[in-house]
Amino acid sequence: MEEMKKGLEGVVALDTKISYIDGIQGILMYRGVKIEDLVDLPYDAVSYLLINGKIPNESELSEYSQELKDNRIINGKQIDVLKEFDFGVEALDGLRTAISCTAHFDLENNHHSPDANKNKTIKLVAKFPTIVAALHRASFDKEPIEPKDDLSHGANFLYMLTGKIPTDLEAEAMEKDLILSAEHELNPSTFSLRIAASTLSDLYSAVICGLCTLKGPLHGGARKGVMDMLDEVGNIENARPYVLNKLERKEKIMGFGHRVYKTYDPRARIYKDVARRLSIENGDTSWFDLAEELENILYHEFVEIRGKPIYPNVDFYSAVVYKYLNIPAELATSIFAMGRVSGWIAHCMEQYADNRVIRPRAHFV
Amino acid sequence: MEEMKKGLEGVVALDTKISYIDGIQGILMYRGVKIEDLVDLPYDAVSYLLINGKIPNESELSEYSQELKDNRIINGKQIDVLKEFDFGVEALDGLRTAISCTAHFDLENNHHSPDANKNKTIKLVAKFPTIVAALHRASFDKEPIEPKDDLSHGANFLYMLTGKIPTDLEAEAMEKDLILSAEHELNPSTFSLRIAASTLSDLYSAVICGLCTLKGPLHGGARKGVMDMLDEVGNIENARPYVLNKLERKEKIMGFGHRVYKTYDPRARIYKDVARRLSIENGDTSWFDLAEELENILYHEFVEIRGKPIYPNVDFYSAVVYKYLNIPAELATSIFAMGRVSGWIAHCMEQYADNRVIRPRAHFV
Ligand SMILES: CC(C)(COP(=O)(O)OP(=O)(O)OC[C@H]1O[C@@H](n2cnc3c(N)ncnc32)[C@H](O)[C@@H]1OP(=O)(O)O)[C@@H](O)C(=O)NCCC(=O)NCCS
Ligand SMILES: CC(C)(COP(=O)(O)OP(=O)(O)OC[C@H]1O[C@@H](n2cnc3c(N)ncnc32)[C@H](O)[C@@H]1OP(=O)(O)O)[C@@H](O)C(=O)NCCC(=O)NCCS
Repeated sequence: MEEMKKGLEGVVALDTKISYIDGIQGILMYRGVKIEDLVDLPYDAVSYLLINGKIPNESELSEYSQELKDNRIINGKQIDVLKEFDFGVEALDGLRTAISCTAHFDLENNHHSPDANKNKTIKLVAKFPTIVAALHRASFDKEPIEPKDDLSHGANFLYMLTGKIPTDLEAEAMEKDLILSAEHELNPSTFSLRIAASTLSDLYSAVICGLCTLKGPLHGGARKGVMDMLDEVGNIENARPYVLNKLERKEKIMGFGHRVYKTYDPRARIYKDVARRLSIENGDTSWFDLAEELENILYHEFVEIRGKPIYPNVDFYSAVVYKYLNIPAELATSIFAMGRVSGWIAHCMEQYADNRVIRPRAHFV
Repeated sequence: MEEMKKGLEGVVALDTKISYIDGIQGILMYRGVKIEDLVDLPYDAVSYLLINGKIPNESELSEYSQELKDNRIINGKQIDVLKEFDFGVEALDGLRTAISCTAHFDLENNHHSPDANKNKTIKLVAKFPTIVAALHRASFDKEPIEPKDDLSHGANFLYMLTGKIPTDLEAEAMEKDLILSAEHELNPSTFSLRIAASTLSDLYSAVICGLCTLKGPLHGGARKGVMDMLDEVGNIENARPYVLNKLERKEKIMGFGHRVYKTYDPRARIYKDVARRLSIENGDTSWFDLAEELENILYHEFVEIRGKPIYPNVDFYSAVVYKYLNIPAELATSIFAMGRVSGWIAHCMEQYADNRVIRPRAHFV
């Protein structure tokens, strides 16, 4: 047995064809295509690319989109189950239970053929937004809203959440959010899902594994953390005292830092641009301005204290985007999962295709 | 980035105080105590040891056992939820949903203080058997059986499953099974759970992550696989043709082989002894004899083909024990989880106590 790298930093755990990160140059590619070249596609196309390994041509895309649309509807019992509980269930916890229930409705749940896995894939990608929207409405005793076939994956989600057709920019922002959240190599949730897959556990169980790991505030939960922080700081004057206080107490500031990127996260750059445009459409740039101020303060404080800057990660400006989309903080992690499910499924299939149980050692002390 | 070890074989992922395996000598210790010195304790004592780091004295043990007994009862809604589904739900899938629902009933679900985690620990360890038994009965439209305070953790489970008080040897076998299943260093389910914990996700989510990974037939699911195999082979005459056929098709034989043990698994030795004693009490040694025949055939075939033997792992004779306890194969993975939950919780707490996000890299090909 060899020397231990805490948190497995830099340790190569497996080979993948799904994504590539250059943390020094700030490059992210899905299936060999740069993220900057993907954000103008529909989410459906990027989901297809991740899962099938190629950008779909027109007929492949329209077939895939149609299959997703045909599967958006959920069985009402999935939501009724959650109504059984007398008190508030956190959104991500509810999603975990609802996906576990979705498996019970799927007669192919424990079938492992390529066809069964393809069917389950469509169901999972298609139903995540419907479940997230319906759960949220149910928590306010509101009825779910039926999906609308002429809306994109992202626009339909916003519609099912509020009952209002989003503006073009809002729809674009939601699609881009799902694309930017869709995949990121061996992040913790994907890694835990690949371990589940490596025991040949089923696709639903693997995805639930991913959800359980995404929830943590040091991972997907950070997006909610940023939204809460923006509320807590409230205005630009409070930004510096807030940051200095946090740093003094050695507390982490949500939405900053990354294990792999040592430069600006390419996703954060795109999110920042979308957030800026939304703030302008909205006629109130104050959330955006506050976020930019926090970014600047942290950058300079880190240079001062550690001789090197810290940059916003994927969860920082995405939170600002959610603010402008009027998305409650409570939903942030679930929406992250709505995007990430395509990447998770791609990794699960890659693990099944050339499997060996993932089983390291621990050093007894 | 360095060379990749497929399945992370031999890679040291973290430090632990919880268990030690010597795969060459065939030694397993929980918290520094050899497994052979633990199997005569009550499961409650071993659970306490794993979670608290020391063998409890008399008053600590009686307090811990009483807390577990006080928390055995479950809220009927956890089971009602599963009755919502019109068709058969696999036992482990049902358990996954039921534990996810248990979190909804726990107002401390998303509290992370040591006290909250202690309360959640007791609830999880205490309620697993009640849920497994009640789910199984519900699938036959039978009412759950109330736990019985004067029975041990294991004996009470058998009682709740069947309504019959187990014999002394049956009770002993169940307790030993839970102890031998309780912990095994960085096996896949524990590793995926530690990744969830490393994002600071909550205890319920981490345990659900463990369940999702345990389910796979190459991990905890193998125990069910062995039970199914014993049924399929049926009698001693079929053993050799079955094994030869499997090996020819390069299919894995469930319950054999191990990533870490290169010799006899010390747990398998203890299970084998329990299985032998049960077979004698039962007056019918045929399952035991069949299992031993399979073991011998595989040993010699492997020596012949590969120049080194293959040994039964923890899932082989445990399956024989379950046969004699009249436990249906369907329940095997859930019962494994009933034991393992103590080890999982111990690892979750260890991860929280000195945390760094577990986030390796993948190599893009
Ligand atoms: C993302 C993250 C988990 C990466 O973890 P990591 O690779 O283990 O990073 P480290 O903890 O080694 O960070 C190096 C140093 O920078 C500090 N640091 C890192 N991120 C920080 C943050 N967001 N705020 C304040 N300090 C931070 C660490 O405290 C550490 O300091 P130390 O050397 O004095 O202990 C970490 O940056 C973090 O917790 N960020 C906040 C949560 C978040 O936004 N998560 C979403 C990730 S996409
Ligand atoms: C436990 C297990 C996953 C360990 O996996 P591993 O360390 O990756 O072992 P490997 O796959 O490298 O095994 C080495 C060789 O032995 C063979 N082998 C291992 N276990 C075998 C089994 N149970 N039956 C037949 N062949 C087996 C493998 O096929 C492999 O052959 P190869 O070199 O021709 O590819 C594996 O032994 C297995 O799948 N066993 C059956 C399932 C089981 O009982 N799981 C419970 C584990 S507690």
